Amino acid sequence: MDSVLVMIDHPDRPRQDPAEALRPEDAADPQVLVNDLGITRGDGIFEVAGSVDGRVHALQAHLDRFARSARLMDLPAPDQPVYRAAVHTALGRLAARLPGRELSCKFIMTRGLEYPPGAHGPTGWAVAMIAPDYRPQRRAGIVVVTLDRGVRRDVMQTSPWLLAGAKSLSYAVNRSVVREAVRRGADDTLLVSSDGYVLEGPSASFLALIDGEVVTPPASDGVLPGTTQADAFAWFAQQGIPTRVRSIDCEELAGVRSAWLTSSTRLAAPIRELDGRPLDFDPDLTARLNEHLLGRDG
Amino acid sequence: MDSVLVMIDHPDRPRQDPAEALRPEDAADPQVLVNDLGITRGDGIFEVAGSVDGRVHALQAHLDRFARSARLMDLPAPDQPVYRAAVHTALGRLAARLPGRELSCKFIMTRGLEYPPGAHGPTGWAVAMIAPDYRPQRRAGIVVVTLDRGVRRDVMQTSPWLLAGAKSLSYAVNRSVVREAVRRGADDTLLVSSDGYVLEGPSASFLALIDGEVVTPPASDGVLPGTTQADAFAWFAQQGIPTRVRSIDCEELAGVRSAWLTSSTRLAAPIRELDGRPLDFDPDLTARLNEHLLGRDG
Repeated sequence: MDSVLVMIDHPDRPRQDPAEALRPEDAADPQVLVNDLGITRGDGIFEVAGSVDGRVHALQAHLDRFARSARLMDLPAPDQPVYRAAVHTALGRLAARLPGRELSCKFIMTRGLEYPPGAHGPTGWAVAMIAPDYRPQRRAGIVVVTLDRGVRRDVMQTSPWLLAGAKSLSYAVNRSVVREAVRRGADDTLLVSSDGYVLEGPSASFLALIDGEVVTPPASDGVLPGTTQADAFAWFAQQGIPTRVRSIDCEELAGVRSAWLTSSTRLAAPIRELDGRPLDFDPDLTARLNEHLLGRDG
Repeated sequence: MDSVLVMIDHPDRPRQDPAEALRPEDAADPQVLVNDLGITRGDGIFEVAGSVDGRVHALQAHLDRFARSARLMDLPAPDQPVYRAAVHTALGRLAARLPGRELSCKFIMTRGLEYPPGAHGPTGWAVAMIAPDYRPQRRAGIVVVTLDRGVRRDVMQTSPWLLAGAKSLSYAVNRSVVREAVRRGADDTLLVSSDGYVLEGPSASFLALIDGEVVTPPASDGVLPGTTQADAFAWFAQQGIPTRVRSIDCEELAGVRSAWLTSSTRLAAPIRELDGRPLDFDPDLTARLNEHLLGRDG
C-alpha cells in the first residue's frame, strides 16, 4: 500500500523536540485498539491536507482548524509543532518515492480510550497517501444536488452541543449524503439548512458567482471554515474578482451562473449542473485557480 | 484489562459453522487499521448487550436492530449466526472468570477499509467487558435536562440520509450532549426535536408515566427502537400497568409524574429531577423492573 504512517505519542508535557513524539509505523499493521473512542464513538477530529513534492497546501490553516475543532469538542489542544512535524515527515517520505504526484495527508486525534476511564491521553497519527485522480472532475465539472441537512442555519449559536462546524470523526452522514446524491445521478451534494440557507458540501465549501461577486457562507452558519476556500478567495481578489462571505438564501440558487465546490484534495471542482439546471463554467479561470492551489506551500 | 475480544472474519459466503469466522484476540493489542472507515468516518454500526452469568439480555432484539441499522446505512447485512456466536463466546469466557458480575458486550461492524476502494469486506468484532456499576443510579435516580437535537421529529421520513434511528459509530454528538448535561449539573439528557417533541436520551429510551399509562415515542419519530424499553413495556403490561407507544409533545413534560431512561447496561434509571423539577419515583416498582431486566435470557 502506497502510504506512510506516523503515529503520535501524547506525553503529559510538551517535548523540546517534536520529532521525539513521532513513531513511524506500517499502515498495513493494526494500530488502533478496539476501545479507542475514535472508533467506538467517532469521538475525535481530523484534517486532510493536499501536497505535491513535499509542499503542503495550507498546513497552518489546517492546524488552526484542527485546534478549533478540538475546542468545539472539549478535546485537549493538539500540540501544533508535533502534528506539523508528523505531517511533514509522512508527506516528505512518500513524496521522495513519488515526485510530482498529488498526495494527501490525513491527521487524526481521538479522545483516547473509552476504558479504563481517565487512564490515557489522546490517540493521534498522520498518514500520507496518494490522492485520487480528480483532474477529470476539475476539468469537466461535477453534477450536484441539494439535500437537507436537517438543522437550522443558526444551530451553532443556539445548540453548540450539536458540534456544527467541528470536523469530527462522526462523518457517517457526510458519507450517506454522497450515496444519496449518487442514487439521484449526481456526483456530490450541496447541503442546505432546514430554514432554507445554503451550507456546504459534505467535504467541501460552496462558492458561487452571484451578481459579479464570488460568495460563500460564513462559518457562523454552521459550516466548516474552508482552507481551500480561503486561498481561492485570496486568488480571486488578486484577479480583480470581488469576494464576499455572507449567508446565501436557497432562493438565490436559481440566479447562480457559476459555482464551485472547493476542498483540499479535489481543489476547485466546477459545478456543471445544480439540481438539474446546467451552470456555466469558465474552464480557463478554473484551470488557473487549480494551478494556483496546487502550487501552494505552507 | 478485564475484557474478552473476538474478531470476526467476513468471508464472501456464509460458513457452515459460525465459529469458523471467530478469531479470539487480545483487546490490549491494536486490531484496527488507521484507514478503517469505522475510525476515519465513524462509518459503521454497533450494539451493546447486557449479561449476567452468560445469560445475554435481549440478544435477538439487539441483532435485529443491528440489521436494521445496517439497512438504514446501506451496509451489507450482518451474518446473525456469526455475530451471535461472537457475543456468546466473548461473554461466556468473561463470565467464567467473573460469575455473578454484570457484564456487557459491544459488537461492531464497520464498512471496512477506506482504501484501496472495494478491496475488502466489513470489519467486525465483539468485546465483552465489566459493566460500570449503575446500581446507585438505579436506586437513587438521575438528574436529567432536556436539550435540542436540532432536527424535526419527521426527519426520518423526509431526509433518510440523516440516518436518524441508525445506531451508528458517529456518536460524537451523543457524547457532547452528556458533557453539556454535566455542565448544567445533570447526569444525562433527554433530547427533544426542533419542533417540540420528546425523542430519547443519547444512549437510552425515554419512558414516562402520563395519565396512568407508560408512554414512549415511536421509532418513526427518529428514535432508536429500545431493546430494554420493549422488555420493560412487556413487564409493565404483566403488572397491569398500561403502555402506549406514541409521540410526546414537550408541553406534556410538565404533567409527567414519573419517568425513566432505559438502556442495556444501566437498565431502568428513574429520573428524580427533570429540568429542575423533582419527579416522583416508586423505588419498589423500579427495583422489581430492574430485577426482571437483569434476569432476561435471549
